[in-house]
Amino acid sequence: MSTTRDEVLASLRALLGEGAVVVEPHELERYEKGWRYGRGKALAAVRPSSTEEVSRLLRHASAAGLRVVAQGGNTGLVGASTPDGSGEMLVLSLERLSRTVEVDPVDRTVTADGGVLLSTLDAALAGHGLLFPIDLGADPSIGGMVATNTGGTRLLRYGDVRQNLLGLEVVLADGTVLDLMRPLRKNNTGFDARQLFVGTSGAFGVVTKAVMRVVPRPVQRVTALVGVSSGAAVLGLLARLETQLGEVLTAFEAIGAAALAPVFRHQPRLRDPFGGRPPAYTVLVELSSTLDPSRLALDDLLESALGEQLEAADGGEMTDVFPGKPSELWEIRHGVSESLRQEGEVLAFDISVPRSSMAAFVDAARETVAAGWPFVRFCDYGHWGDGGVHVNLVWKPEDAPRPTAELKAELQPRLYDLAVNRFRGSYSAEHGVGPHNQAFYDLYTPELVREVCRLLKARLDPAGLLGTVRLG
Amino acid sequence: MSTTRDEVLASLRALLGEGAVVVEPHELERYEKGWRYGRGKALAAVRPSSTEEVSRLLRHASAAGLRVVAQGGNTGLVGASTPDGSGEMLVLSLERLSRTVEVDPVDRTVTADGGVLLSTLDAALAGHGLLFPIDLGADPSIGGMVATNTGGTRLLRYGDVRQNLLGLEVVLADGTVLDLMRPLRKNNTGFDARQLFVGTSGAFGVVTKAVMRVVPRPVQRVTALVGVSSGAAVLGLLARLETQLGEVLTAFEAIGAAALAPVFRHQPRLRDPFGGRPPAYTVLVELSSTLDPSRLALDDLLESALGEQLEAADGGEMTDVFPGKPSELWEIRHGVSESLRQEGEVLAFDISVPRSSMAAFVDAARETVAAGWPFVRFCDYGHWGDGGVHVNLVWKPEDAPRPTAELKAELQPRLYDLAVNRFRGSYSAEHGVGPHNQAFYDLYTPELVREVCRLLKARLDPAGLLGTVRLG
Repeated sequence: MSTTRDEVLASLRALLGEGAVVVEPHELERYEKGWRYGRGKALAAVRPSSTEEVSRLLRHASAAGLRVVAQGGNTGLVGASTPDGSGEMLVLSLERLSRTVEVDPVDRTVTADGGVLLSTLDAALAGHGLLFPIDLGADPSIGGMVATNTGGTRLLRYGDVRQNLLGLEVVLADGTVLDLMRPLRKNNTGFDARQLFVGTSGAFGVVTKAVMRVVPRPVQRVTALVGVSSGAAVLGLLARLETQLGEVLTAFEAIGAAALAPVFRHQPRLRDPFGGRPPAYTVLVELSSTLDPSRLALDDLLESALGEQLEAADGGEMTDVFPGKPSELWEIRHGVSESLRQEGEVLAFDISVPRSSMAAFVDAARETVAAGWPFVRFCDYGHWGDGGVHVNLVWKPEDAPRPTAELKAELQPRLYDLAVNRFRGSYSAEHGVGPHNQAFYDLYTPELVREVCRLLKARLDPAGLLGTVRLG
Repeated sequence: MSTTRDEVLASLRALLGEGAVVVEPHELERYEKGWRYGRGKALAAVRPSSTEEVSRLLRHASAAGLRVVAQGGNTGLVGASTPDGSGEMLVLSLERLSRTVEVDPVDRTVTADGGVLLSTLDAALAGHGLLFPIDLGADPSIGGMVATNTGGTRLLRYGDVRQNLLGLEVVLADGTVLDLMRPLRKNNTGFDARQLFVGTSGAFGVVTKAVMRVVPRPVQRVTALVGVSSGAAVLGLLARLETQLGEVLTAFEAIGAAALAPVFRHQPRLRDPFGGRPPAYTVLVELSSTLDPSRLALDDLLESALGEQLEAADGGEMTDVFPGKPSELWEIRHGVSESLRQEGEVLAFDISVPRSSMAAFVDAARETVAAGWPFVRFCDYGHWGDGGVHVNLVWKPEDAPRPTAELKAELQPRLYDLAVNRFRGSYSAEHGVGPHNQAFYDLYTPELVREVCRLLKARLDPAGLLGTVRLG
């Protein structure tokens, strides 16, 4: 360990070539900084361009005792893809590991290198009338999506990465390449080793390749906004629409009034159908189908299903229905997070509860916040069809009696406790685990599970060199 | 270990009550015998009726060093739910652990005890317009389905048990109850401990309860048989129908001519649309929808899609299309296995390959068998939409030059080698692992995966008391 920094960098250059090693501070910055939160300090960023190079790099890092954090698109929100502040970690960037994108239309699969971006994948699949059904605001890499188990807005219909993953190639800390690439839909041969690497934030290995099952690409898509008078009514509408619309229901998102209003304030080119008076909840319903409109008229279907609901709605549970172009309505939905940031300080929570408890949880959370932190605006929106809710707490800096960090330290444990202990929910619905929520991982993970993770870590990364999260 | 059998039985009765312990040979037989294959010898069958009783029993068994095999519906095909021949194992039957069946229509989930049967679950869900989408010829229990990761004929549309599992309760060998019951669709908080118990044949614990995500129940279902001239043409038809029919395609099964003919020979009440001259492959296509026929006419859709294919088919690739009632066409499909058994000796293989390789694999397997074992009839059928194929080898006993056991020892390694090594396939597509295919598990499982399983076993069942499969 008496190796100097220059010696380390020289050995990395010798190993992978000059261009693979980034050290200049202004070039290094983007590898050190999280997409939205956090900032670390790296020894260097290293960019291998093949599985063999990843293997060589990790073997070398293991021998030299260098800590490594893998980074794909670096769009994560829990700090799992950026180095810590020590200045001693290597960032293993997957950005050059992005040559393979193979679509097999008969197999209905796509094989991609770990660094291939979602947008690249989507473009390749579109040409074959296929779709990788993970839909997000960000553009992560395949490797990062596996390590996070990405979900997104169409999970309701298509599931998450775990549910669509067929094959996987992983490089372990010592450079061993683990080939789990059989692209099989049916393969019941004992413990499914792929699961070690799904949603575990790179703690057990670096995902260098994956085979994903993909779906036929819809040829039509229709959307509408529905005004609903309460959270309970949102759940009622969800259950009834699922029964009525079944397999063509693709998304069911709900936006609370306090989360919706800022969108139209900060993005004036978006048309506000509610004329500045948003209902308690605005639901975005999307239907899509691979069947032709001549065969199945989705616009009619949605209009009549919502019309029926509007008519049957008891005591004004549903206030309005506005059909609209998918691109426009999704822009409203995707504009929420950014617009809230323009309103002041924001604390954002990525929570899930059993979806039948969504209304009760949101009400309880709102009351908790109102009682103790009356200057905070409670803004909630999310994937009600999947029990996922983004609770955003917003306040004007000048109204805050204490610094943001202190308020976070007060509010975070309260809301997580409510979700996890009272509503059997989760403190990280889709963002995964990383340094930003490590303390809550430690608090809420069953001891037996952590013990199993320690055993796994001791075998797969005995020196503890990989990643920035501690699962054991 | 000098305890006598009588002392063991007395202690079990003291623990769980007289009625929970079955020892009479004629009563014990059904717990000792596999559904289709195999027969062991049990010390006793014990039937706890609550998770607490399962916990008490396993704690006692651990202390006394008694080996235990859990048994649900006992419909498995690899010997994983029956005792070995030692006469020293306890069968832990889940049949009385079947009180809880709770449907939550807003959550769209069902919570069931480990011993609840698929048929019971289905009946409870039907009343709510919901469906647990695992479709099989057998009637397994929920616990057994999790331990096997059951697939079935509608996996193409709905996925397997793993993909529909939300929460899980498991009792470990030492009696510890592991509560992983949060019924969340989104919960990305590190290693997914549920995966330790899915498809691992009870080696790591006994599944006592599960929460499954269920789907809206279709209100219409249409089927047709399609005559196809080759395996390659079956794959072409599959890819084109998926593009055309997308989300309403529920099943795509193909039956080779040699597998179809015996159905009509042995089940004369079934009508043979091909008049005794079956095509190379008969494909059963099923569409289903939760939309009303007035909204989406599935019968029209299927007829026109297949008509279009028939017209476009090059050089007689598709020979015939016969629409028919789902119940009747499925009876033909489900009659294959039983009919082949009436033709003579049968060796059955449950194989999968990447689905784009189905035709090539089946051809290669057929050639292999014809070259070395000319007296064998090669009969194949299965889930082509999912890359699953049941290869059945059939011969008349009088034609066999050697005993069945010897022929099995020759043929099994050849076919598995072909599937696993040449076609990147699996020797157990959906039946799981157990004593019947342990040797192939040992042969084909990556050493690292077995090593991980040894670590897991050492923690979760250190004395090796649970189950009859050895994953490490």
